[in-house]
Amino acid sequence: MSDPIITLTTDFGEESAYVAAMKGVILSTNPAARILDLSHLIPPQDAWHAAFFLAEAIPFFPPQAIHVVVVDPGVGTERAVLYVEIESHQLLVPDNGVITLLARNRSATCRRVAEPRYWRPTVSATFHGRDIFAPIAAHLSLGVTPQQLGPSVTDWVQLSLPTPIFQHDGIAGEVLFVDHFGNLLTNLPVDRLPRQAFRLGIETVAGLPAREVQVRPVRTYGEGRAGELLALVSSGGFWEFALPNGNAARRFGVRRGTHLKVINAA
Amino acid sequence: MSDPIITLTTDFGEESAYVAAMKGVILSTNPAARILDLSHLIPPQDAWHAAFFLAEAIPFFPPQAIHVVVVDPGVGTERAVLYVEIESHQLLVPDNGVITLLARNRSATCRRVAEPRYWRPTVSATFHGRDIFAPIAAHLSLGVTPQQLGPSVTDWVQLSLPTPIFQHDGIAGEVLFVDHFGNLLTNLPVDRLPRQAFRLGIETVAGLPAREVQVRPVRTYGEGRAGELLALVSSGGFWEFALPNGNAARRFGVRRGTHLKVINAA
Amino acid sequence: MSDPIITLTTDFGEESAYVAAMKGVILSTNPAARILDLSHLIPPQDAWHAAFFLAEAIPFFPPQAIHVVVVDPGVGTERAVLYVEIESHQLLVPDNGVITLLARNRSATCRRVAEPRYWRPTVSATFHGRDIFAPIAAHLSLGVTPQQLGPSVTDWVQLSLPTPIFQHDGIAGEVLFVDHFGNLLTNLPVDRLPRQAFRLGIETVAGLPAREVQVRPVRTYGEGRAGELLALVSSGGFWEFALPNGNAARRFGVRRGTHLKVINAA
Repeated sequence: MSDPIITLTTDFGEESAYVAAMKGVILSTNPAARILDLSHLIPPQDAWHAAFFLAEAIPFFPPQAIHVVVVDPGVGTERAVLYVEIESHQLLVPDNGVITLLARNRSATCRRVAEPRYWRPTVSATFHGRDIFAPIAAHLSLGVTPQQLGPSVTDWVQLSLPTPIFQHDGIAGEVLFVDHFGNLLTNLPVDRLPRQAFRLGIETVAGLPAREVQVRPVRTYGEGRAGELLALVSSGGFWEFALPNGNAARRFGVRRGTHLKVINAA
Repeated sequence: MSDPIITLTTDFGEESAYVAAMKGVILSTNPAARILDLSHLIPPQDAWHAAFFLAEAIPFFPPQAIHVVVVDPGVGTERAVLYVEIESHQLLVPDNGVITLLARNRSATCRRVAEPRYWRPTVSATFHGRDIFAPIAAHLSLGVTPQQLGPSVTDWVQLSLPTPIFQHDGIAGEVLFVDHFGNLLTNLPVDRLPRQAFRLGIETVAGLPAREVQVRPVRTYGEGRAGELLALVSSGGFWEFALPNGNAARRFGVRRGTHLKVINAA
Repeated sequence: MSDPIITLTTDFGEESAYVAAMKGVILSTNPAARILDLSHLIPPQDAWHAAFFLAEAIPFFPPQAIHVVVVDPGVGTERAVLYVEIESHQLLVPDNGVITLLARNRSATCRRVAEPRYWRPTVSATFHGRDIFAPIAAHLSLGVTPQQLGPSVTDWVQLSLPTPIFQHDGIAGEVLFVDHFGNLLTNLPVDRLPRQAFRLGIETVAGLPAREVQVRPVRTYGEGRAGELLALVSSGGFWEFALPNGNAARRFGVRRGTHLKVINAA
């Protein structure tokens, strides 16, 4: 059997020693652990971004991995640390909604981490990643059972997901996520993606009317022509807008939360 | 024998879950694979940068590593996915020229990936890294042979390399790569590096005459004085310009493609 | 017994192939080595940042890890490469002070790397990370002893640490480190952290009088209110200033070296 896998997803960046310290703590408890970086560039304290990230990444992992997620603006407060099983996946997360998207339409069980025996002897008020999350992950990888971590809970923080609105002249939605290439992942319903070219309204800054852009639905980026905005279903199942060989977010001044409207053909 | 090594080189960044999903897919197929990040900060869709990166990195690896390269603007189009052996090194790459520099002066053989048995059951049109490259790499690490992946091919995309031009009053070349320290790697021929201080012409923005800078050839960065532009042979065998404890690219407004001219002594 | 761990801390970034080449060299010598990235985003040639990073990270690692640190503006000059044991931790570092903080209040022994048998056959003048550090680390992980690397030395470069100054009306110190969240780690003495709200003087740009800001001492970030500057003891034992859910460095225009003054209550 292979050595156990512990993955790390944080907003710590790499300039500071936070991630390195967590790796040290994990290896001090279980020198055989295989540590895998998922990301340390979740935007600082952005639980929503982390939720999106996890939903796109965790389902592809084998069950034996233990996923540690430290995007934790509430560190040092009363927010709980959770051990979560979502289908066969195991995660350690702060209770701030980062599992919202991953747990949607999947069975999940949850425990509140409460047993200090598996923490570092001294727990700093500002760095639970090192003092609670890392040592617990290492202990789990050594065979400590979820039951030993703390009591079962049935309630946890959920982020509210914006829902698309069906209007008489179109569908209004918003940008959920802007990826590294400037592609726009949205909450528009993929089963309503038009088959023909259509007009998309894009919210602009205060006071200006929304601009309208011509969009062509395609199956792949490669079908697009330079400068043309494409609509397609993303690899994660979201309705996505992309500019072939360009950056749609930059071109149209769009960010997470920007409102969009698919305008019905007249 | 050690567990198999699979390296990843992409332009995916770390904010999005692309790399994480690929890691999950690899480990789901071969839980014993050792995944090693080479870079996820290849500039988006920059096959030339990737080509340079691979030429400077891959030769140092032992033969047993499998190198996955996903810098792939053509994803979802008819561009092929290639399995390449360059001397003893094994790579999975999109057929867009990323192996150009690595394959120069080295023997290479190539197969076109065609056997869907080793892919994920559903292949998205936009994310072959997860659905084709990652599972193939994992299968190779488990003993699938290159022959099983698809047919041998003898032709693949080559990027054209700018060649230096020998003129009556000097040698004209250009910047191939600006590294993290702002050092300038060029296509100037290292066997023509002068032994004495010389003048370097540096192209400036439209309409302005090229500026001229005094350059001193040295063997190491450490021989330079503050503010002095040095010429030396880079660790990868390129003719390089560097500013000791400074950033030459920023100082002289140079980027990849900027024309340079080594001016003959009068 | 687990496979040996080699960690990497550099200022190489990820765009260039420097780190990848080092990983290749390590695995070519010891294919079983487990390579762990600590950071490749130490600011270029910033030995002081590296010193701070190491002091916050290395103490958490188990003794069997070998830590390779390449933040090395003096590469190619006469600066030595050192093998250092600090308590049970083993490091390979350039002799430029990066161990200053880690070695403070800890026992340390040191060897100067001098035996080329454990280097790459050709050593470039500009890339000792690949040609000296990486192969030595791999050889150590295979059982080469520190004695075989070179002679013991008792003297190494120390960075000078700014000391706080006790004045009649307060304590003057400075910012040692700005972390990823914009939190300010300082050289102010933690045993003098007031229990009540106090005024902090913050140096401003040339000619302007220092501004004064109200600060509240707390135990955790979570106790703060929006917009309020907090003082607390950092996870690494430094006196730290933080803006809850904000970026103190950006808000107050502070960077490393900015002078601060804790003003005594009148």
